Amino acid sequence: MDTVQQASVTAAILVIGDEILSGRTKDKNIGYIAEYLTNIAIDLREVRVVPDVEAEIVAGLDALRARYTYVFTTGGIGPTHDDITADSVAKAFGAAIDVDPRAVAMMSERYKPGELNAARLRMARIPAGAALIANPISKAPGFRIGNVIVMAGVPSVMQAMLDEIAPTLATGVRMLSETVDAAGLPEGIYAGGLAELAAAHPGVSVGSYPSFTGAGFSNQIVARSKDAALLAAAVEAIRHMVAQLHADRAPI
Amino acid sequence: MDTVQQASVTAAILVIGDEILSGRTKDKNIGYIAEYLTNIAIDLREVRVVPDVEAEIVAGLDALRARYTYVFTTGGIGPTHDDITADSVAKAFGAAIDVDPRAVAMMSERYKPGELNAARLRMARIPAGAALIANPISKAPGFRIGNVIVMAGVPSVMQAMLDEIAPTLATGVRMLSETVDAAGLPEGIYAGGLAELAAAHPGVSVGSYPSFTGAGFSNQIVARSKDAALLAAAVEAIRHMVAQLHADRAPI
Repeated sequence: MDTVQQASVTAAILVIGDEILSGRTKDKNIGYIAEYLTNIAIDLREVRVVPDVEAEIVAGLDALRARYTYVFTTGGIGPTHDDITADSVAKAFGAAIDVDPRAVAMMSERYKPGELNAARLRMARIPAGAALIANPISKAPGFRIGNVIVMAGVPSVMQAMLDEIAPTLATGVRMLSETVDAAGLPEGIYAGGLAELAAAHPGVSVGSYPSFTGAGFSNQIVARSKDAALLAAAVEAIRHMVAQLHADRAPI
Repeated sequence: MDTVQQASVTAAILVIGDEILSGRTKDKNIGYIAEYLTNIAIDLREVRVVPDVEAEIVAGLDALRARYTYVFTTGGIGPTHDDITADSVAKAFGAAIDVDPRAVAMMSERYKPGELNAARLRMARIPAGAALIANPISKAPGFRIGNVIVMAGVPSVMQAMLDEIAPTLATGVRMLSETVDAAGLPEGIYAGGLAELAAAHPGVSVGSYPSFTGAGFSNQIVARSKDAALLAAAVEAIRHMVAQLHADRAPI
């Protein structure tokens, strides 16, 4: 499949799992996928986390797949009764679902024929019309149907599936980003100037991100744009502002 | 304010911030709030992450506040131009918003009068009718309006605000949870038995959670219920199943 470059390629993530909502499992996939998509020039626009409830999964899928170029799901494709993602995706698409011989063939690399019991064959249930996504780690595949990409919840397996599917995706113009360190300057000191600066640089998104170290806040200013020249001009202006504020605050 | 106990108290989290969607910042609040709410008997049912775009924030707020007892937002209440949460919340509620003298008084504990410039006073903009949430760390308050609780994005500040607001919230019946270690047993071995067991224990939610260590999968089975006796019976059955499977697999 050839990679297609478009002006704007968007995505959402649908995280599926009671264990994330209960706090028992701390999600590690959202941040990973977010950074990965930024790097391949796909704009992540929304994330939802829903429980292992078919109606919730279908509603989330339908809302997101209508709106974004791609929807990436994580979780719920294992062999146990609480793994209902594949069936929910089939329902959302109105597609039939059954054990897929291609998936069984992939799983046969790991399981001997006698080991492929009914539970494990649940992992080979794939909606009709879906393309499989190889799983080099534990063999049971993910899949893609329409614009929905269904991946495992276990981070190492999800990451391997993302590496498999990424080269087949359309990508847009990459969002460029540059960070200016504003440590030592309170946000309240530069917020007014930064707002004027942001307004004077259309095509560049400017954000200020505080973090709290215990000793106090340490701030970073981030400029983002798909246009390198616009970005460079905004970053130059931010650096100038920060240097000026440091000079103003230095003891005479 | 007295704490009220209800049969089921539900919640959603709305995470607001471009930096989470770009992957620049890895969210640490979802997992923290999820675990916190479970501990105080509030059921987290959904999470959404949206960008710093007013229409997206308002749409997320409106969808979630209509559906759940509480909506907790994080992010976007600082002094810079990209901090638009308070204004977006006011818009969702059709409420006026202005600098609130109560918030200014709180902030005056930290800032001298001359330091409260226009940017910092943005942090005192509170929708009409909202109750303030004290911020012991950096003083600029969060707030609650209707069933929406607006908190900072910086984790230490968010956590302090959650401690402030939690005692005032209605709480439900606590979800009890017990974990049975199934290390050494593949999910595909016990999935069939576990499905039957789950069906035989209504009122108990049973999940199986694999993690991948590099050496292989290590699984845990989690049973959850609001009824201690139902939970104990299910856990007993799970333990029995696991012990039986270990015995079946032991060399003779």
